Amino acid sequence: MKSREKIIQAATHLFHKKGYQTTTVDEIAETTRVTKSNLYYHFRSKEELALETLDMRMNQFESDVILPTLGETSLSPKKRLQQFYDHVADFHSSLECRYGCPFGNLAIEMSDVSEKFRKRLSIFFRNWEKAIERCIDEGIREGEFRRDINPKLVAQLILSQVEGAIMMVKTHKILEPLTEGAKAVLKLLEPA
Amino acid sequence: MKSREKIIQAATHLFHKKGYQTTTVDEIAETTRVTKSNLYYHFRSKEELALETLDMRMNQFESDVILPTLGETSLSPKKRLQQFYDHVADFHSSLECRYGCPFGNLAIEMSDVSEKFRKRLSIFFRNWEKAIERCIDEGIREGEFRRDINPKLVAQLILSQVEGAIMMVKTHKILEPLTEGAKAVLKLLEPA
Repeated sequence: MKSREKIIQAATHLFHKKGYQTTTVDEIAETTRVTKSNLYYHFRSKEELALETLDMRMNQFESDVILPTLGETSLSPKKRLQQFYDHVADFHSSLECRYGCPFGNLAIEMSDVSEKFRKRLSIFFRNWEKAIERCIDEGIREGEFRRDINPKLVAQLILSQVEGAIMMVKTHKILEPLTEGAKAVLKLLEPA
Repeated sequence: MKSREKIIQAATHLFHKKGYQTTTVDEIAETTRVTKSNLYYHFRSKEELALETLDMRMNQFESDVILPTLGETSLSPKKRLQQFYDHVADFHSSLECRYGCPFGNLAIEMSDVSEKFRKRLSIFFRNWEKAIERCIDEGIREGEFRRDINPKLVAQLILSQVEGAIMMVKTHKILEPLTEGAKAVLKLLEPA
């Protein structure tokens, strides 16, 4: 692997695990066995590196998680939402309930610290919400979800609930807030 | 105000605003105009100080927020839940959508770093959840909420949703995820 890729891989992991502010450039260099001067040859600053890993992670989430679940129009809307929840739960299961959501963590850590981070995350969350909204909207029209709800507000609720559930998974070290949370949401959306 | 109280007040604010790890003892001492040796006379370490402010904040939240809203049995369960949401939204409005939830922030920052923080927050969130559960349970029995839901799972969902909504408020710098989220939840809980 080239040094640039190694740096990105190590930085992505460390920022997820430890947050942005407590991760040092020394630590990233040490983990990758790349010299600091080589690291600074590829990235002007820790901020530049972090924003690049964040952009990559957001693009990856859209292509690897949102599109094949919420965006998978060969599935029924209810199935799409279910698969989205399953994917998120599987991810946190594979992490043994550690680390939390890479986007939610940064949103909490950086929203009052850096407008560069905050604006990126704000746009990202809105796009995610819109993918949920399209799924809910279609589910209502197809009779899978109740008709008396507002797709936009329910999408906002679901995104909040998922992020809060991941916070609870990290705190209690059990998956239940995500797995049972998904069931509770799907139950509330059932048509009368 | 005595130095001990001044230290606690400043530390409570700084830990909320900046998090635990990036707040330094120097900063707390500077803000309070108390010498570092005086600070260490009252608290053996930053951790001891942070755990004490956290305990105080959790007790305060239970007596000043949970009891007068979710625990206010003179109100109908639906009104209690509504007042709870209003209280949370008013708090974040007064902070101009900055800082986020003092408990959620620490849960994300510290759950993989310190078992002392994680365990306290885990118990605190469970108690909060139980207060919501009692309200939902009573609301079902009184016919204010739909009967086909599980109070425990819905309480878990509501706590996740509130914490996630506060994250979104901090990220988007608007109150809507909390205020509209509350309406959406109450709507979904209406009896058929």
